[in-house]
Amino acid sequence: MTDEHQTEGPARPVRWATITGVEVTPVAFADPPLLNSVGVHQPWAIRSVIRVRTDAGVVGLGESYGDQAFLGRLRQMGERLVGERIVDLHRLEEIARDVLAELTVSDTHGLTGTLSPVKSVARLVAAFEVALLDAQGHQLGVPVWALLGGQRRSRVEFSGYLFYKWAGHPGQPDDEWGPALDPAGVVAQARRMVEGYGFTSLKLKGGVFPPEQEAEAVLALAEAFPGMPLRIDPNAVWTVDTSVRVAERLRGVLEYYEDPTDGRAQMAEVARRVDVPLATNMCVVGVEDLPEAVRLGSVQVVLADHHYWGGLRASMELARTAEVFGLSLSMHSNSHLGISLAAMVHFGAAAPNIGYAFDTHWPWKSPEEDVVEPGVFTFRDGHLDVPTAPGLGVTLDEEALARQHRRYLEAGILDRDDTAYMQTVDPGYRALKPRW
Amino acid sequence: MTDEHQTEGPARPVRWATITGVEVTPVAFADPPLLNSVGVHQPWAIRSVIRVRTDAGVVGLGESYGDQAFLGRLRQMGERLVGERIVDLHRLEEIARDVLAELTVSDTHGLTGTLSPVKSVARLVAAFEVALLDAQGHQLGVPVWALLGGQRRSRVEFSGYLFYKWAGHPGQPDDEWGPALDPAGVVAQARRMVEGYGFTSLKLKGGVFPPEQEAEAVLALAEAFPGMPLRIDPNAVWTVDTSVRVAERLRGVLEYYEDPTDGRAQMAEVARRVDVPLATNMCVVGVEDLPEAVRLGSVQVVLADHHYWGGLRASMELARTAEVFGLSLSMHSNSHLGISLAAMVHFGAAAPNIGYAFDTHWPWKSPEEDVVEPGVFTFRDGHLDVPTAPGLGVTLDEEALARQHRRYLEAGILDRDDTAYMQTVDPGYRALKPRW
Repeated sequence: MTDEHQTEGPARPVRWATITGVEVTPVAFADPPLLNSVGVHQPWAIRSVIRVRTDAGVVGLGESYGDQAFLGRLRQMGERLVGERIVDLHRLEEIARDVLAELTVSDTHGLTGTLSPVKSVARLVAAFEVALLDAQGHQLGVPVWALLGGQRRSRVEFSGYLFYKWAGHPGQPDDEWGPALDPAGVVAQARRMVEGYGFTSLKLKGGVFPPEQEAEAVLALAEAFPGMPLRIDPNAVWTVDTSVRVAERLRGVLEYYEDPTDGRAQMAEVARRVDVPLATNMCVVGVEDLPEAVRLGSVQVVLADHHYWGGLRASMELARTAEVFGLSLSMHSNSHLGISLAAMVHFGAAAPNIGYAFDTHWPWKSPEEDVVEPGVFTFRDGHLDVPTAPGLGVTLDEEALARQHRRYLEAGILDRDDTAYMQTVDPGYRALKPRW
Repeated sequence: MTDEHQTEGPARPVRWATITGVEVTPVAFADPPLLNSVGVHQPWAIRSVIRVRTDAGVVGLGESYGDQAFLGRLRQMGERLVGERIVDLHRLEEIARDVLAELTVSDTHGLTGTLSPVKSVARLVAAFEVALLDAQGHQLGVPVWALLGGQRRSRVEFSGYLFYKWAGHPGQPDDEWGPALDPAGVVAQARRMVEGYGFTSLKLKGGVFPPEQEAEAVLALAEAFPGMPLRIDPNAVWTVDTSVRVAERLRGVLEYYEDPTDGRAQMAEVARRVDVPLATNMCVVGVEDLPEAVRLGSVQVVLADHHYWGGLRASMELARTAEVFGLSLSMHSNSHLGISLAAMVHFGAAAPNIGYAFDTHWPWKSPEEDVVEPGVFTFRDGHLDVPTAPGLGVTLDEEALARQHRRYLEAGILDRDDTAYMQTVDPGYRALKPRW
């Protein structure tokens, strides 16, 4: 605390830093063959690292998806941001709308598909909002949580995220985690994760094997870890009846039941027929989805994700709005690096209405493959301490960024496609919804 | 701009100021005999001025209601705030809940009446939230709008707020505005207000005279100011049928129709039968009121008021939530001083989704009777320029505060009660709802 600075009397007025340049760097890091309802994780997870430079010498960091089309949008948006002040966060939405409007004609990757324009804007805004909050924090000398309304918590709880997995990628030696293809394998993975990180709740990614088999794995976890709060998430590939049947099998064991079935209407039907809270990161992915979900009673827990929810401030608003509607909150995760982990921790420090430990893929990435300098985050008893350093509290490691960018170039994976990768092993594989 | 400060490289970490004391000072300022649906403004408007002192030498200012019971709550809350950091805004809600929980037994002034516990918390939080944001701004050297997400606007539009009024308070000489008891009087008042402030929209507080007479006044305004957007607000004392009849009379003249009738259900019925947007600061006064209002279609415009909506950040959330639900935003006003005006301007600078000029009682208060140093806000063409100085951008005038506090003590008005004051003139007066 000795290097902290306290002004005596009011500070001189700040002239806000102006953005002088934005770098968007795609990176890749090794990812185990984690199984899910649409296939299997490719050998490399891809992400984008956003670095915003300013005329005040402060830099802001962001992290988001690394898919090709999204990288192009990030870069176009980055060019437009030059000359903007880091304080004017509202400009992000305006600029994102412009960028997307221009892309609509030529873009074939999602705007006219499952992504609505609102959600596309939210994803673009989010990537840069975190970077601008980081830069603001550095310019002012305050952590990001201070810009979100203060520090509600000094530590943020995470849940251990278990996956069915192959022993290793096809044609490769077994990875350090080994196989998890049955209840015993899942319990062994859980033991390792609990021992290494101290998690006090566990989630199993389901939708991979027949539901009865996955229920067996959850029951095995319940037996191996008595009293441990458990979750299962089959990514909406079960029918309503299957969802209800599995819930009955798991009665008393789950703390929440994540996206067992598809869509707000079917989720509502499951909710009426089971006695466990339903959670989602699929049928409610923006504030605009809340009214119908509330009206139907589709879910009781919303899993926020600042990457697609429009950023940290929009996630704060979600937390409050959800509270008004009687919904609880937790946080969703994709494969991510230390910048996103930091953003999640600052959100966790500031947000109201958090009822459950956050998801994180963190343990699945080698600590050797991050782009930020190590040492900021160490899991203890399943939680991370909230940083008090300015901004996000993490520092980009230039060499590491260059290294992971080389891995991206070498990997040659331009888009995440778990299904196509699975089909290289099982040509007949289809991502069915519902599957069971 | 020469005194602005730009750090070269990151700032040193800030040690957040801690609250060392809170002063709550009731003040009064002369108020003309403005008529409304429940009576007439008393000769003195009462407000509370909140000053938060810190160990870093920065001070934060807030302003809110001045009623006796509320002053007591503000003081109790102020005592509890000592030792808290100015960054931890979430503590306000926690502390307000505690203070109100303790008061529930002895409090006879509203908790069990029209004010719900949620709304009582919101009022207490709001008074201090503005003060803490002001203090944060001073400690960091940034305006309050910077803490709300940036500056969307460099100026904020206000509407001219017209009132039926007596020539002066009973037993007193005429005030400088003179009488406004018929269409000609209302038009004369409007002329003076437009000439003095440049307002480009006008609102008439109604609910005072028979609806046809008030409609005449609005039509007279439309004739005197061709094309000027107009509003009328009878504070919900009209029936549904009266509301519809007046709307038909005013077809093409109103930009919105504010609270013609009482409650979300009746407002929805009016909304279905008229072709002008309905606005409210009565049937939607908290985020928790939104779901039903949206379901019923009660209103198209929500008038925010940070004093009862939980503060500036909660009002920002309202603005976004309203946008999601397809509602537009403006801002409500009570009689107020320069601290509240500043807070409104910072909100107006930062908020999305503002569709209409804000209300303000500002012209009804003598410039000689404010508690802040003059010169920050000057109306031009109906708008105010957004300050760029740190915090709210206003400075408390110690002598003025002492003077207006003496007026409070001399005035002897402990609670606002327009009805009781009207009854001193007209003993048979009753505040009826509906009246017509």
